[in-house]
Amino acid sequence: MSSMGDKVKIEIFGESHSAAIGATICGLPAGERIDTDELYAFMQRRAPGRDATSTARKEADRPEFLCGIVDGVLTGAPLTAIIHNSDQHSRDYENLRVRPRPSHADYAASVKYNGANDIRGGGAFSGRLTAPICIGGGIALQLLAKRGIYIGAHLASVAGEKDTAFDAVNIDKEALLSAGKKPFPVIDDAAGERMREAILSAKADGDSVGGVIECAIIGMPAGHGGPLFEGVEGKISSAMFAVPAVKGIEFGSGFACAEMRGSVHNDPFEYKDGKVVTTTNHSGGIQGGITNGMPIVFRVAMKPTPSIAKTQNTINLETKENTSIDIRGRHDPCVAARAVPAIEAAAALCILDLLEGNN
Amino acid sequence: MSSMGDKVKIEIFGESHSAAIGATICGLPAGERIDTDELYAFMQRRAPGRDATSTARKEADRPEFLCGIVDGVLTGAPLTAIIHNSDQHSRDYENLRVRPRPSHADYAASVKYNGANDIRGGGAFSGRLTAPICIGGGIALQLLAKRGIYIGAHLASVAGEKDTAFDAVNIDKEALLSAGKKPFPVIDDAAGERMREAILSAKADGDSVGGVIECAIIGMPAGHGGPLFEGVEGKISSAMFAVPAVKGIEFGSGFACAEMRGSVHNDPFEYKDGKVVTTTNHSGGIQGGITNGMPIVFRVAMKPTPSIAKTQNTINLETKENTSIDIRGRHDPCVAARAVPAIEAAAALCILDLLEGNN
Amino acid sequence: MSSMGDKVKIEIFGESHSAAIGATICGLPAGERIDTDELYAFMQRRAPGRDATSTARKEADRPEFLCGIVDGVLTGAPLTAIIHNSDQHSRDYENLRVRPRPSHADYAASVKYNGANDIRGGGAFSGRLTAPICIGGGIALQLLAKRGIYIGAHLASVAGEKDTAFDAVNIDKEALLSAGKKPFPVIDDAAGERMREAILSAKADGDSVGGVIECAIIGMPAGHGGPLFEGVEGKISSAMFAVPAVKGIEFGSGFACAEMRGSVHNDPFEYKDGKVVTTTNHSGGIQGGITNGMPIVFRVAMKPTPSIAKTQNTINLETKENTSIDIRGRHDPCVAARAVPAIEAAAALCILDLLEGNN
Amino acid sequence: MSSMGDKVKIEIFGESHSAAIGATICGLPAGERIDTDELYAFMQRRAPGRDATSTARKEADRPEFLCGIVDGVLTGAPLTAIIHNSDQHSRDYENLRVRPRPSHADYAASVKYNGANDIRGGGAFSGRLTAPICIGGGIALQLLAKRGIYIGAHLASVAGEKDTAFDAVNIDKEALLSAGKKPFPVIDDAAGERMREAILSAKADGDSVGGVIECAIIGMPAGHGGPLFEGVEGKISSAMFAVPAVKGIEFGSGFACAEMRGSVHNDPFEYKDGKVVTTTNHSGGIQGGITNGMPIVFRVAMKPTPSIAKTQNTINLETKENTSIDIRGRHDPCVAARAVPAIEAAAALCILDLLEGNN
Repeated sequence: MSSMGDKVKIEIFGESHSAAIGATICGLPAGERIDTDELYAFMQRRAPGRDATSTARKEADRPEFLCGIVDGVLTGAPLTAIIHNSDQHSRDYENLRVRPRPSHADYAASVKYNGANDIRGGGAFSGRLTAPICIGGGIALQLLAKRGIYIGAHLASVAGEKDTAFDAVNIDKEALLSAGKKPFPVIDDAAGERMREAILSAKADGDSVGGVIECAIIGMPAGHGGPLFEGVEGKISSAMFAVPAVKGIEFGSGFACAEMRGSVHNDPFEYKDGKVVTTTNHSGGIQGGITNGMPIVFRVAMKPTPSIAKTQNTINLETKENTSIDIRGRHDPCVAARAVPAIEAAAALCILDLLEGNN
Repeated sequence: MSSMGDKVKIEIFGESHSAAIGATICGLPAGERIDTDELYAFMQRRAPGRDATSTARKEADRPEFLCGIVDGVLTGAPLTAIIHNSDQHSRDYENLRVRPRPSHADYAASVKYNGANDIRGGGAFSGRLTAPICIGGGIALQLLAKRGIYIGAHLASVAGEKDTAFDAVNIDKEALLSAGKKPFPVIDDAAGERMREAILSAKADGDSVGGVIECAIIGMPAGHGGPLFEGVEGKISSAMFAVPAVKGIEFGSGFACAEMRGSVHNDPFEYKDGKVVTTTNHSGGIQGGITNGMPIVFRVAMKPTPSIAKTQNTINLETKENTSIDIRGRHDPCVAARAVPAIEAAAALCILDLLEGNN
Repeated sequence: MSSMGDKVKIEIFGESHSAAIGATICGLPAGERIDTDELYAFMQRRAPGRDATSTARKEADRPEFLCGIVDGVLTGAPLTAIIHNSDQHSRDYENLRVRPRPSHADYAASVKYNGANDIRGGGAFSGRLTAPICIGGGIALQLLAKRGIYIGAHLASVAGEKDTAFDAVNIDKEALLSAGKKPFPVIDDAAGERMREAILSAKADGDSVGGVIECAIIGMPAGHGGPLFEGVEGKISSAMFAVPAVKGIEFGSGFACAEMRGSVHNDPFEYKDGKVVTTTNHSGGIQGGITNGMPIVFRVAMKPTPSIAKTQNTINLETKENTSIDIRGRHDPCVAARAVPAIEAAAALCILDLLEGNN
Repeated sequence: MSSMGDKVKIEIFGESHSAAIGATICGLPAGERIDTDELYAFMQRRAPGRDATSTARKEADRPEFLCGIVDGVLTGAPLTAIIHNSDQHSRDYENLRVRPRPSHADYAASVKYNGANDIRGGGAFSGRLTAPICIGGGIALQLLAKRGIYIGAHLASVAGEKDTAFDAVNIDKEALLSAGKKPFPVIDDAAGERMREAILSAKADGDSVGGVIECAIIGMPAGHGGPLFEGVEGKISSAMFAVPAVKGIEFGSGFACAEMRGSVHNDPFEYKDGKVVTTTNHSGGIQGGITNGMPIVFRVAMKPTPSIAKTQNTINLETKENTSIDIRGRHDPCVAARAVPAIEAAAALCILDLLEGNN
């Protein structure tokens, strides 16, 4: 369960303050060339400091390849890449074992690991672990693009402000892909400005906000996936919940379908330019767990950053008394913004796995 | 990918009109006694005909045990149970290969299986395949109850009508568990009556409606799951998407968290009667992918039944022309109602797997 | 762990005296036609009573297909086939829980399953469970033959008598494949006669004998498998140990390689009719865990049937005293003879899985 | 397939001349302390140069921990350790793509990886990859020892010279465990001296020899494993074939059982000091795929080192002509000697996985 994928499999390792974090990706196709500059550029999209709304922490997330690639060409052997963790603040993290932070993993992890988990900087639960996902996903994105499959995501909403410049039937590929590369990843910059204001307002209050990321997989051929446990929705969803802070996922019309009638929700088929398409895409490109050739469209809900400056109630596990906690440090007031490339990366790994495994 | 679980694993087989459907469940604890009457009663909860809102079709879903159980006691070997499919209507299902039904798997499956899939009655994509999930899940529910873990679900909304009689912090266990046993599975019967009216109104229009099912896992101990790909949310979500018609899932506050601030969303810890609890449960019992001892709460969105009586646009795959289709037959106007036990069953299999596998 | 395979996966279920035994095979290629008569003929090869050396028990092992096949064509959905167990002798098997039979699973299984395992007729440990392996393997053999891959096995030795009419470099395909179809599966019938005499002699003494089965996979293309845990030897070996009574496996020169020098053992490459071959085949067709295009050749050691008529020492688990046991019933005096098709079947499942999974 | 284990899982990465090789081990029990000095000492057992019979190459195989361990205590997160590859000779390895070495992976790998595999130093097929197995296995050995389970191996034969000082029923634990720590890993040093002479004689001839390693798992409790694909023999065997050069494995009496009668081969049960034992151990501690409480005993056959100094026939894949090859470099004339700790390591990982996974 600590890895993902059947044919193309990724295994993530590392803790926030361990010597390094990294990933091993197996099953990548031998002989394919990877553009490492493009990969580093992709990694930079999740680095902090690109926008005033993100944390001031610095993370130099340039992966170092240990094996599996020679002169930019995949050898077919497992590819391992690591990112060294630079020297970290020696704050008294042990305090967090005694007084767990609300809505962090501190308490739950302490029970699971008998208190032996590395609690420094969030340990294995840190959002920093999305960097290795981006290594594997960044490689997968390149391999998929060679096959005409493109994956892009944008912030669909933050604190109630929505970026609605997205049409799940006729996706503007360029607009979507360029959104992800902006310092603030929206299609409609005016909507983005409203989101940024909401984030900075929360930050000023010592608070945080949540958001929704919308992702599309364009160019996906029909016929991948399967019924029941083979379904593409299940596969993508389990990948998405691996990204810290994700609390929900919906495909196509998603939860809105619960208020729709079948006659509205059903996607009629039609021939368009000789190709089978649907005139609506409430199914999000997946029917019966199998891709139908339309873009796969899904949205994930990301909770507000649990680390906030406000004083919060918690407990003292030693004295077994109720107490409070003040969390210090520099935290993203909205994790959704920087999570956009991680969502694309996780999706890319799923899709490449399906294709390479004949599934 | 055609099975679910690591230690307790379920494999589903069968097609709507094949000789039988069934499930093999491996890893069940040897020596435990199963109450087969209780299991049959559970199976009846998904049978049609219990409420005027369900299909008039008859399905005698009494499982026949082939192996793995002797005199009601689990032997530890794989348990296989089947349900014979009775004689089916010999309608011209082949027509569906040529003119795929909108939002059904017909077209996508035809591409994947080169047109060889059993299309009769929906084949492997039929909602009927939730019966084997209920066999495995019904057994799992009994085994969990012996350990003080109870799983219940209810219809949270149908066509916009909501059953709000549910408190994720202080769950009324009896009310929740008895809701599932009602012909129409709601906690608040008045809300249920409004839902039923909406369903019958859609049915009268030759149409269908979607819904949301809310599920709670009560008594779940803290410390199960893990970060990244080990997370409980990912595990449960992939199980839920195995249930036909599910298009979304959210844990705790779910998509609503995107509009909340961290100071509201965070669940403060406190000691209550010497036990660690949280005063709110926006996390849905899971933090960092690990259970925190609070009830696990999640909701799944179910799309409207795609089989509706209205004429719909589709294509003719032979002539490659646009055309239309009229679907006949007796279909549930709202699949969400009968899916409630399947959601409980899938959740139970996930939780038993976690516990038995020391995960 | 209760199933085998990644892309083409088989799950076996059933106990010797349960209502039925069977198998579910997932990932079979949709649209391929299966010759069921050929499959039944293959199943008959493991049926008892074909030769005087086998048990007089009757087993009508005609599989009944529950799903996954329509009019002889694979639908792509899981294929489940079962064999009903006819009424069995109601002997007092419970005695075996108290006085475990030497070298049977009785004692070990009793510990694992807390005494709840179905002990009748050997339960899940019965050699009868090779029948479901033969169902899946028989199908796989047909699919492989369409691709020019043939698998055959013969008894290489029994009680020291050897059938040496086998050349691992230039395999006589017809001779090998027809050996398996004989009532006594040897290439050299004279050697077979000596083996049969040894078996009947042991039987007359109330005893049993072991044997070695040699198997070849002809027409296997180069380039399948991989290093370390991806190796073809590891994959095949774990399949072989699933066949009851197997206690050893060796590839190519196997254990004899331990007494060879590299200059003798190494297989020199050469071009022959424009094709890459090796002039010897001590590697058994596998180098570095990957097929090299030569026939895959391996041998498995099968222990003597543990059920013998002679009185044996054992213990009484209730009184905790040393005692003895007399085993009654009709048992094969040499399980190796009837295991030949099971070895071919297990190998076929491995190879089909490699091919279908792009591995 | 690129990893091993269900609950305790190891993934190996690296190529002979890549920046580093290493392993990620998941599922290790949080809170357990690892003695890193003991681990380094174990790693040294596979290092070359301890005996005149091994290669003169130097390998400083001191693992560097990247994560998963803090102050010697396992955190429960994946543990990754790497060994940096020091600067390597820049020989023209590309030649090996054109003229594959007999009985090496060169040709087979070239087909599989389309010629993109890292061929330098054997790439992913190098015996050097047993070092990461030893990291994971060395940790597993320590964790098992705390539970009273000890694993030891010795050279049972080399070039026909045998170390017979081993009794599978009453194993001399101290003698076995100390054998592994000797520069030349035998129990009977006189036998070892004869083996060494055979190795040095082959080396003097520019040749190599094979050998057999015998391994015992002492203190293994009864009741682990299962029938069919759950069997302990299958699990251990697939682990053993992951060690380069292994061509065969047998449990208990192994291939010798083929010449034994059941009355001799069967292991009678008896009570000894109130404990259930068998008076012989032809089953090698496993019956019906399940441990029976006796020591698990198995032997693996290791082929002669394929890299020999003698001129050998091979082909030129470019000109498609038959040609010859002279292999240079410093190679172990008998890989079996240095493989002993790798065999113990692979076994330890299997056993720990069984125990931690409740299997």
